[in-house]
Amino acid sequence: MINVGILGYGTVGSGVFDILRENGKLIAGRAGEEISVKHVLDLRDFPGDSVESVLTHDFKDIEMDDDVQIVVETMGGLHPAYEFVKACLERGKSVCTSNKALVADFGPELIQLAKDRNASFLFEASVGGGIPIIRPLQSSLSPDEILEISGILNGTTNYILTEMKEKGADFDSVLKDAQALGYAEADPTADVEGHDACRKIAILTSLAYGKNVDFHEIYTEGITKITDRDIIYANRLGAKVKICGSSKKVGDGVCAMVAPVLIYPDNPLYSVDGVFNAILVRGNMVGDVMFYGQGAGKLATASAVVSDVIEAGKNIGTGVPVQWTAEKLSLVSFEESKSRFFVRTAGTKSDSESKVRDAFGDVEEVDAGFSDEYAFVTGEITEAAYEKAAGAVGTVINKIRIS
Amino acid sequence: MINVGILGYGTVGSGVFDILRENGKLIAGRAGEEISVKHVLDLRDFPGDSVESVLTHDFKDIEMDDDVQIVVETMGGLHPAYEFVKACLERGKSVCTSNKALVADFGPELIQLAKDRNASFLFEASVGGGIPIIRPLQSSLSPDEILEISGILNGTTNYILTEMKEKGADFDSVLKDAQALGYAEADPTADVEGHDACRKIAILTSLAYGKNVDFHEIYTEGITKITDRDIIYANRLGAKVKICGSSKKVGDGVCAMVAPVLIYPDNPLYSVDGVFNAILVRGNMVGDVMFYGQGAGKLATASAVVSDVIEAGKNIGTGVPVQWTAEKLSLVSFEESKSRFFVRTAGTKSDSESKVRDAFGDVEEVDAGFSDEYAFVTGEITEAAYEKAAGAVGTVINKIRIS
Repeated sequence: MINVGILGYGTVGSGVFDILRENGKLIAGRAGEEISVKHVLDLRDFPGDSVESVLTHDFKDIEMDDDVQIVVETMGGLHPAYEFVKACLERGKSVCTSNKALVADFGPELIQLAKDRNASFLFEASVGGGIPIIRPLQSSLSPDEILEISGILNGTTNYILTEMKEKGADFDSVLKDAQALGYAEADPTADVEGHDACRKIAILTSLAYGKNVDFHEIYTEGITKITDRDIIYANRLGAKVKICGSSKKVGDGVCAMVAPVLIYPDNPLYSVDGVFNAILVRGNMVGDVMFYGQGAGKLATASAVVSDVIEAGKNIGTGVPVQWTAEKLSLVSFEESKSRFFVRTAGTKSDSESKVRDAFGDVEEVDAGFSDEYAFVTGEITEAAYEKAAGAVGTVINKIRIS
Repeated sequence: MINVGILGYGTVGSGVFDILRENGKLIAGRAGEEISVKHVLDLRDFPGDSVESVLTHDFKDIEMDDDVQIVVETMGGLHPAYEFVKACLERGKSVCTSNKALVADFGPELIQLAKDRNASFLFEASVGGGIPIIRPLQSSLSPDEILEISGILNGTTNYILTEMKEKGADFDSVLKDAQALGYAEADPTADVEGHDACRKIAILTSLAYGKNVDFHEIYTEGITKITDRDIIYANRLGAKVKICGSSKKVGDGVCAMVAPVLIYPDNPLYSVDGVFNAILVRGNMVGDVMFYGQGAGKLATASAVVSDVIEAGKNIGTGVPVQWTAEKLSLVSFEESKSRFFVRTAGTKSDSESKVRDAFGDVEEVDAGFSDEYAFVTGEITEAAYEKAAGAVGTVINKIRIS
């Protein structure tokens, strides 16, 4: 029998508890032995809940119990999650976490610590919720050099952008509805400003290249500046606005960013709507593969955590290797990153056209019926070239990169 | 160093050879040691090809070489692939294959044989080409009871149906074009009659439930009866015709079939077009997850084979467990399987309407502008009930199930 301790009985932690109980027999068959929850740590009490018999308020009950081989960390936040996980790994326990902040900040250190103790540090649930992506990236795609990763990594913002398109509504009203429905948090900053997606693309990029990406260095732009007019232009172009986390091999370097992009129907990410997430990976041999599913939600995310628990359980005493070292992965300077840009400028066509062509060269005009604006799509240019030209024009209202 | 023997230097076998050479350094890093091709078996000669130095015409050179720990089987067909694979496993070598016929016919026996010798028998490439599906189904989805699998499992037929829709062309002319382009074989029977997809859904279903599905027992219907009029009706319904392999848990049993179905835009398989494949899996905890990519092609399929080689290489001496026993999985009688049906009948509306309502009860009429037909969608009924009602009407031209 494998004994598990769970740190945090919130949404995901209680989901892990429920799955290990409800699917327990099936899981025992697949894991080769029974997996039982021995302790659940939470500061709160849960009177009448089935967790009561295993609930503790003292972390030491888990840390010091040598019968506990696997610890699930579903507390969220950096502290004390980091200290607790470290203490468990130091005692030779394996840890499975859904905590993307912890993984993005401390991944290489915790992976190394697990390795030193022949234990596992696994985090399938930290990216894409229930979508299998971390393990396929490490195993199924191991023959491939990864050329590009591009993902809709945040369900809240994908829901907001989908609703803006379908209802023709503006950002603020859709955000309020999303908050009322529980799809967006009271403080939506981490989602709408792209910080959540940034940590996730940092994790995926680190795994793809085996070296550490400092997520602070990734250019991150949220969706708060996207307006209903942008959506109308996107419709006119036959495209959708999505916020993507992406990283791309450029020469010997990697270029990573999080930003709203225009996606066309020939891209499989185009049809990923609502709260769903998807990650497109391009390998130099396998071509494009995409992984799609629920990027959040109690049981979906908990299922990913439990898949890690089963894998850690099968590898007690040896540990599951994860290729992600502390060596820094150098990112290509953002200024050198290239895209085509959709750009809206204030003023009529006759005001703007020659100014725009002087600055951007040949552009494709986009007419969505607004006579007070002049909008266009540029050729492929660097961020630096875009900034210079936009500065010269002086009347840019908004820009969106084209995927 | 791990030594590999490759049986068959055709499309996939030469792809495996190329990947192990071109991505060799990266693969060595991830596998933990160098993986080198020591022998390639083929009856043909390849003068001037880099395979020449390792080419053999004698299987014994691989079978009897104790330095060869992993054998790649990419010959296709059942014989002598089966005899060769069995001989290799009996000598304790691991085998990685792309041969779906071999896996569908002899899966449990070869898995057991590998297990008895602490070796691996792996077959990621046998379903979905380069798409990671076998390994995720076995590991990432291990916490879940699988409720349903539904897949676009054959690129040739998906290409044909996509072209029929996009060009408004009929089956025969699109098939001829596909043959000219190399997307369909000279004898397209296995693809267009659904036999290929049938073996693939049998493999996936066997893995999902750990018991053996006899693919002969799966109801299989191809796309040869789909006409341009069916596509026009599908357009009218806002749906697409796709040929899907599916299996679904119904009570304690599993219902499996391969057939053309109408798929609506809310299904993520709707946007899988052309030669791409995708597999949608519904777990009782994780919900819907989908895996998408190139279902065929030299390097994509070979990449899946090499991912197995790397995994087998990491598990020399222990073997990678695969949960698929010889115990028979009992399929629900096809007659009891339930669907909604789109049905076309010959004759005008006034000829047919009352006859149809007498036989099928309340139906939704579908008007695509053909006055010589009466078409409709039924409620959810069993196959047996459909057959009885269709017999009573007596004028059915075609029917397509609704996904």
